[in-house]
Amino acid sequence: MPKLEFWFEYASSYSYPAAYAVADACEEAGVELVWKPFLLGPIFASQGWKTSPFNLYPVKGQYMIRDMERICAKAGLPFQLSTDGDWPQFSVAAARIGLIGAKEGWIRAFTENLYRLEFADNLDISKEATLRAALEGVAEADRVISESRSRETKNALKAQVDEAMSAGIFGAPTYRVGTEIFWGGDRLNDAIEWAVEHAEP
Amino acid sequence: MPKLEFWFEYASSYSYPAAYAVADACEEAGVELVWKPFLLGPIFASQGWKTSPFNLYPVKGQYMIRDMERICAKAGLPFQLSTDGDWPQFSVAAARIGLIGAKEGWIRAFTENLYRLEFADNLDISKEATLRAALEGVAEADRVISESRSRETKNALKAQVDEAMSAGIFGAPTYRVGTEIFWGGDRLNDAIEWAVEHAEP
Repeated sequence: MPKLEFWFEYASSYSYPAAYAVADACEEAGVELVWKPFLLGPIFASQGWKTSPFNLYPVKGQYMIRDMERICAKAGLPFQLSTDGDWPQFSVAAARIGLIGAKEGWIRAFTENLYRLEFADNLDISKEATLRAALEGVAEADRVISESRSRETKNALKAQVDEAMSAGIFGAPTYRVGTEIFWGGDRLNDAIEWAVEHAEP
Repeated sequence: MPKLEFWFEYASSYSYPAAYAVADACEEAGVELVWKPFLLGPIFASQGWKTSPFNLYPVKGQYMIRDMERICAKAGLPFQLSTDGDWPQFSVAAARIGLIGAKEGWIRAFTENLYRLEFADNLDISKEATLRAALEGVAEADRVISESRSRETKNALKAQVDEAMSAGIFGAPTYRVGTEIFWGGDRLNDAIEWAVEHAEP
């Protein structure tokens, strides 16, 4: 079966509509989807960036907001973002929970919930209350949050970020098929096409 | 009639397949196309970049090469690029000729020719011989090259770059419809859709 990895970051605005689109698109095309939450912070830092390029280059930041408004309107998703203050958000705790969700099979619901809380309701995803709200009806919050703070989970996230760097991933969302990477939500169809055409028999 | 501006840079790799796609797509959709050659150099410089982000961030540069290979293969366009040495190329002379071509109606042929010489044949587009080759069968090279060196043309290019900056354009290719901008060749269809849906009656 063709396989596609979806590399995304909980603090990344463009990852939000992409996360809503990827599962249905893969299912429709008969492609196995692997959710890969990771962190952009260490990758940006390795390029000498201390924050998001949307903060470093305000003209890009303004464009991103407008572009996200259009993309979300088209997808029927609510969107409200202020890049004032501490944007982008601190997403380490969310990514650790995402890793557990990927292992246990409930990452899609958690991810959709969390992005809505972040980009429609403007809640702080580094706060435990927000993470608990995203886990409601999805998984047992006490257990998951405790496990997300274990050494094992912390190491798994570090390994995931290392894998992203080795794969040449530098932004989110990124789709990976074998060694091919496709950067940006607008490349979903290209990635799926590649997966289907280059699937091992 | 709906109208779309195509902002592109002769040194930009992604502008090459985009330039080959834009005219037919606009014609098919009944959208008037306005060719807008401009320079990214001054815009990058205003962000503190002394060269292309593909040089500043090698992981992005490697991705661009692979991505261009895929895009051009899909479009049936030859592509061969070395980012060693003096890449990106010096495109001021080409942009000045492009401006004359836009005014006189032969910019499409000149642009297609020049991109082929640059990205398939690896010729230096700052050299007069390359510019003359791209003008062959398109316009009278002696007259055009002389006019491209006039004060009027130089000022027109400066004004074009100022217009790009004022419009919030920060990369190439960019499509503009009214005040809406769409960055990246993969956004052509979004831009055309926007032009059709928001055309003034």
